[in-house]
Amino acid sequence: MADLQRAAELLLGWDNILILSHRSPDGDTLGSASALSRALIALGKSVQFRCADEIPEKFAYMFSGVRFGDFEPEKIVSVDVADKALLGTLEPLGEKVDLAIDHHATHRFFAKETWVDGKAAAACQLIAKLIPALGAEITPEIADCLYTGISTDTGCFKYPNATPETYRIAADLIECGAHAADINRVMFDTKSRAAIELLKRVYSDMEFYCDGRCAVLCLTKAMIAETGAKEGDLDGVAAIVRQVEGVQFGITIRERGENEYKVSLRATEPADAAAVCAQFGGGGHKGAAGCTFFTTLEEAKTRIIAACGDALHLQ
Amino acid sequence: MADLQRAAELLLGWDNILILSHRSPDGDTLGSASALSRALIALGKSVQFRCADEIPEKFAYMFSGVRFGDFEPEKIVSVDVADKALLGTLEPLGEKVDLAIDHHATHRFFAKETWVDGKAAAACQLIAKLIPALGAEITPEIADCLYTGISTDTGCFKYPNATPETYRIAADLIECGAHAADINRVMFDTKSRAAIELLKRVYSDMEFYCDGRCAVLCLTKAMIAETGAKEGDLDGVAAIVRQVEGVQFGITIRERGENEYKVSLRATEPADAAAVCAQFGGGGHKGAAGCTFFTTLEEAKTRIIAACGDALHLQ
Repeated sequence: MADLQRAAELLLGWDNILILSHRSPDGDTLGSASALSRALIALGKSVQFRCADEIPEKFAYMFSGVRFGDFEPEKIVSVDVADKALLGTLEPLGEKVDLAIDHHATHRFFAKETWVDGKAAAACQLIAKLIPALGAEITPEIADCLYTGISTDTGCFKYPNATPETYRIAADLIECGAHAADINRVMFDTKSRAAIELLKRVYSDMEFYCDGRCAVLCLTKAMIAETGAKEGDLDGVAAIVRQVEGVQFGITIRERGENEYKVSLRATEPADAAAVCAQFGGGGHKGAAGCTFFTTLEEAKTRIIAACGDALHLQ
Repeated sequence: MADLQRAAELLLGWDNILILSHRSPDGDTLGSASALSRALIALGKSVQFRCADEIPEKFAYMFSGVRFGDFEPEKIVSVDVADKALLGTLEPLGEKVDLAIDHHATHRFFAKETWVDGKAAAACQLIAKLIPALGAEITPEIADCLYTGISTDTGCFKYPNATPETYRIAADLIECGAHAADINRVMFDTKSRAAIELLKRVYSDMEFYCDGRCAVLCLTKAMIAETGAKEGDLDGVAAIVRQVEGVQFGITIRERGENEYKVSLRATEPADAAAVCAQFGGGGHKGAAGCTFFTTLEEAKTRIIAACGDALHLQ
């Protein structure tokens, strides 16, 4: 098991590095990848970056001005990837990863060397310590990337994963030039007109089960198309479903393909989202987890509600 | 003009102290009052507390277990009160205030001594420094009160007023025992069924003016009654109106009485909410300000939209 020092030593000895983010990339995996890329390039190394899925528009600023190289990778580093399956279509590269840097307590080891800190709120929190250990500077651009990852993974410091260290790193990043308020406005306080249409539907369509302790929302492709909402507009929906007073499990069921439904489960303590999703081959954190059903919407809904109901009875 | 040291000296020399919060009390004025009360009581002093308006249910925990005394006040301290008019029905006490502790850059001096720091994100940020200067301990209960004020006044660290110092004080408060995630869940992530009904209406009723740069929402008494929403449910509405992409002024007009309408104005930089509200005798910060119209709803709406439109032209 590698640590901060080991990760820094390895990276300092390497060149021609490929950095991998997880599929359906979020602020933390992209912020980690971009910040680490920028630091390694500043140290004179050649870096490439790959992700199975497209970078959402609102995260594009993180990669502006990064000079990626054209070369045959010698070393591969994954950031914020808890399991090689989360590399998506890049999963075949999983076995070739030389260093995995991650903050998921549920990390399933796949790399030659792994630095995982399950207490860190975000992978960006690890990268914020790694960059000075590499002898590189946290420039304002790097600070923006790292702040983005920390803020998005903590729900803007709202979730229990934000520790005193998280707040202090954020303070340091602002002093390094991170545009915290601007980033937070884009991440949390900007809604497109389509997102407003979507929210109208979300608040109208939510259903309650288990004496109001489970809230369920189904996002079908047709419903999303009607509102005109894009991928980025859908980000906050899973959290909204859990916000209703008395709700312990917020269930969002999204149509992915024919008879393919992705469940995003959010839980309020003592309810455990990861434990419920594990029953269906999924995973995640106690507060937020996911799983996929290959069946009809009605069947997926029935099964996940039943599992949540059972979990509530056992409490 | 008093400073931290002077404020501490004064308070240490006093006893039988009445602490005042501003009308329509929020997390910051109540957190400041409760934290300071607890610290002064721990130092053996007798303390009372008054506020013109009722304490919203969700803030009640801040006053649990505080032992207020029964006495004729010798000294009066106001916290987070920018103007004596904001004492509401307690305004006559304004001239008798011995020490005002405030963080509004727009503070209108009314007390015998004033400690104002316009760069502090919250009055609680000042109280967090004052309590150790008094030689009192920041207990877990005090930490909860101070964290509440800082978190609510910064929109959970989202707004530009959150500085590196704000984050570091929050980190210290969590180490003192503040239940940050629980507090944030109650303040930002809990919506009653009535609040959900209200949001449905908000997203449906919002109107756009000035090429989509002004968003307007009218909250009439009838509309609020229909949804069953309570005072606490209405807190976030003003911020929601400004969240729509492209909106620079978010205008929320709320019916207060017959021909009395309170405008809550939120602005995105470079738009300036305080400058617009000042034209109608109101005030506040650049990002959030308010004013009151004694006229019909239509007239209030027309005048505030026109003023926002003018401000956008001048940019």
